[in-house]
Amino acid sequence: MRVLPIVQIVGFLLILLSFLITLPVNLLVLGETPDQQAFVTSALICFGVGFLCFMVTGRKRHGLKQREMFLLTVSAWVIIPFFSSLPLLFSDLGLSVTDAFFESISGITTTGSTILTGLDDMPADILLWRSLMQWIGGIGIIGMAVAILPFLRIGGMRLFATESSEWTEKAVPRTNRLARGLVFSYLAITLSCIGVYWLLGMDLFNAVNHALTTVSTGGYSTSDSSMGQFDNSLIFLASSLFMALGGIPFFLFVRLLNGHYTPLLRDKQVHFFLQFLLIAALIITLYRVVTAGAPVAEAFVHALFNVTSVVTTTGYASEDYMLWGPLVIVIFFFLTFVGGCSGSTSGGMKMFRFQLSMLLLREQMIRLLHPRAAMGRRYNGRVISDEIIASSVAFSFIFLATLALASAVLAALGLDLVTSLTGAATALANVGPGLGDTIGPAGNFQSLPDAAKWVLMVVMLLGRLELLSVLVLLSPHFWRG
Amino acid sequence: MRVLPIVQIVGFLLILLSFLITLPVNLLVLGETPDQQAFVTSALICFGVGFLCFMVTGRKRHGLKQREMFLLTVSAWVIIPFFSSLPLLFSDLGLSVTDAFFESISGITTTGSTILTGLDDMPADILLWRSLMQWIGGIGIIGMAVAILPFLRIGGMRLFATESSEWTEKAVPRTNRLARGLVFSYLAITLSCIGVYWLLGMDLFNAVNHALTTVSTGGYSTSDSSMGQFDNSLIFLASSLFMALGGIPFFLFVRLLNGHYTPLLRDKQVHFFLQFLLIAALIITLYRVVTAGAPVAEAFVHALFNVTSVVTTTGYASEDYMLWGPLVIVIFFFLTFVGGCSGSTSGGMKMFRFQLSMLLLREQMIRLLHPRAAMGRRYNGRVISDEIIASSVAFSFIFLATLALASAVLAALGLDLVTSLTGAATALANVGPGLGDTIGPAGNFQSLPDAAKWVLMVVMLLGRLELLSVLVLLSPHFWRG
Repeated sequence: MRVLPIVQIVGFLLILLSFLITLPVNLLVLGETPDQQAFVTSALICFGVGFLCFMVTGRKRHGLKQREMFLLTVSAWVIIPFFSSLPLLFSDLGLSVTDAFFESISGITTTGSTILTGLDDMPADILLWRSLMQWIGGIGIIGMAVAILPFLRIGGMRLFATESSEWTEKAVPRTNRLARGLVFSYLAITLSCIGVYWLLGMDLFNAVNHALTTVSTGGYSTSDSSMGQFDNSLIFLASSLFMALGGIPFFLFVRLLNGHYTPLLRDKQVHFFLQFLLIAALIITLYRVVTAGAPVAEAFVHALFNVTSVVTTTGYASEDYMLWGPLVIVIFFFLTFVGGCSGSTSGGMKMFRFQLSMLLLREQMIRLLHPRAAMGRRYNGRVISDEIIASSVAFSFIFLATLALASAVLAALGLDLVTSLTGAATALANVGPGLGDTIGPAGNFQSLPDAAKWVLMVVMLLGRLELLSVLVLLSPHFWRG
Repeated sequence: MRVLPIVQIVGFLLILLSFLITLPVNLLVLGETPDQQAFVTSALICFGVGFLCFMVTGRKRHGLKQREMFLLTVSAWVIIPFFSSLPLLFSDLGLSVTDAFFESISGITTTGSTILTGLDDMPADILLWRSLMQWIGGIGIIGMAVAILPFLRIGGMRLFATESSEWTEKAVPRTNRLARGLVFSYLAITLSCIGVYWLLGMDLFNAVNHALTTVSTGGYSTSDSSMGQFDNSLIFLASSLFMALGGIPFFLFVRLLNGHYTPLLRDKQVHFFLQFLLIAALIITLYRVVTAGAPVAEAFVHALFNVTSVVTTTGYASEDYMLWGPLVIVIFFFLTFVGGCSGSTSGGMKMFRFQLSMLLLREQMIRLLHPRAAMGRRYNGRVISDEIIASSVAFSFIFLATLALASAVLAALGLDLVTSLTGAATALANVGPGLGDTIGPAGNFQSLPDAAKWVLMVVMLLGRLELLSVLVLLSPHFWRG
């Protein structure tokens, strides 16, 4: 295990981050930037540490071995939130270290749980930095999900790779082209989202902030009432569309850039994802129309928006859906786990794992009746290898085991059943809000004890890193030859 | 699809049941039997219908095809609770059809959720019939789990069959020997349990009742305070032991009868099951000692008893563990799903499925570090086939999907989140009590709306039949050629 190449890349990332930290001040240079000093200091520290890393390691580029890639991935997802929390810590908000770090981990992992209240009166630079953290996290996730985890055999993305040879170490030029395509798609969708929000009536500041947190499926907003501050059905629909785009595998957009639109149109995961959103929204609409006599169109818009928000793991709310009746609460409980598509910015268990299970269920049913039936397992036209199924079982198991363990720890810290359970779930799936009075869509994570906040931070990171890449670091095999 | 052979076997089962229905009156002939008329009428109806089935079909014995076996299994599990509910319906309790049927389905499926209050003053014959229903259900489950489902490739029991040839159609003599062994083990354990309970201070009536509902992991009791009525640590420990025996694969006892004790001692599922019980009990003990200053020994006995009760899906309570603090509530929430060993009287997801997942997780971790490592998958010394893994995934998926659907339906009927979620879980895993004020260990299912009771009945049956055997009946393939 060599540490130098890892330090080198972390140094490079920190230098990049230091420039991003100056962005809120630069972008708002004509407006109000009361925390200018905090941002400048943070950027300098970040740049300094990054530069030091670079100096120590020299400019020679090292190739990374698989084992080192694991360590790099996990280190980067801890170090970047740490430096990202500095502007919050140095600002006039008077946050504790715990709260500042919670807000930045929740931001970078695109979870979107917040400990801040009074967002409506918050300085613009702080708000913009929160949104930027989520946007940075979003591109980090896509890069990791599409370029790193498949190579590390994590997250089931191998099923979606165009060719298995794409993930061999020789494929660097191809990976570079892929990376450029991903960044370009991400930028293009973000810019479109800014434009659409602005056209629909948001001011530019709100359009930028919400576009950054929509496309990254992050969910930070500029108001305590989240997206509810805009009482505009068209904004809810547009936001649903862009959240859904954030929940679609980004390599399909890269294909689109290269002129291949059939992969996107024919993708089974995307079909299932969109059908799922629609059906869940329709059930909630029907229930609200029947039980509360809500107007159909309005009920549908709110249902679609909040369902899309939770399934894509964004975490915006347009209303307090805890008030929509017990069925809706149960539905949102289960939706918290689902997640969008593999290879997108969303978290959770991901659509394709459910499809895989359904496929095996169907196969099992046929086999019960025709024991000698021959069956080929295919998904999106590809054979599903035994390895994919085993890794899907392993992931689902560790996901649910982590959920149980995290809920238990939160309960041991004194949280009630619903808060423990949904707090662990929302952190693990990187959604944002939980259920109940404390951390529900109308609530806030501020009042939780510090220890619970640290537990949730660890769980957010575990969820974001698809669990296995962290778990592998804890295995004694990892540190042996 | 031939209906006659199915009617014939159902007729045979009903005649058997009619004799069992007379048991409470016969056994209590010297005591108080206010509901004698109800039992006699029910037995006559049951015998009459059974005899009619027999008359219609003649005495010629038919072999059953696999498809017919599915239909028989599901029919028997609906028809037997129906006839078992008659004594309750005809008794002086004044139960509605819904309540009588709920009590008998909950009994026969060995769930143990009750709609009755005032058990302490209930006529002895009614109490004994409730216990008998669970005992009948228990032997039904073992027979089904060991002799029928493996043949139908359901429930993963093929992994535990001594030889795969045992499940071919030629193996009838062997199956008969197995069936005799199972019935003998079940009887022997029940009689031992009666003896131990009696020696520890229960009167004979209570010893018999509780032995019947302990060994079958049913959980009906003769008091509203369940096992809490006996304030006796030795009874709690003995009961834990016999519940645990009820949660162990019964074919291991058959092996024991034949002089083979190593399979029982070396069984990986049994080891894991016992370790699991102990660890969960120790965590709860530690928590209660630290947070509430409970005396160590007493806290351990109560923790072990209630943990064993929920994990084996019995459902007794020695105290209202909802009062033991938030950590304990969360632990019991997750314990509700776990279940005992495959091939026992317990329900739930079953230990070996967790072990299988852990095995695949471990394999996945090794593969992440050594991509070319060759790995053989073995469990209890046998190779785990691809079919076992696929069927385990299919079962886990349909289990969780049914849980989500049932919770949603219960919530749509107006139940709150915790009641919906834990009500669905406790019914699906055939445990008994849920969580919360209404259906918690100190609560009762009486106050639920009738529609919710019917939903829970369907879910109990689905859980008991391992879901797939019902699902296969709903498939269009089943009814086609």
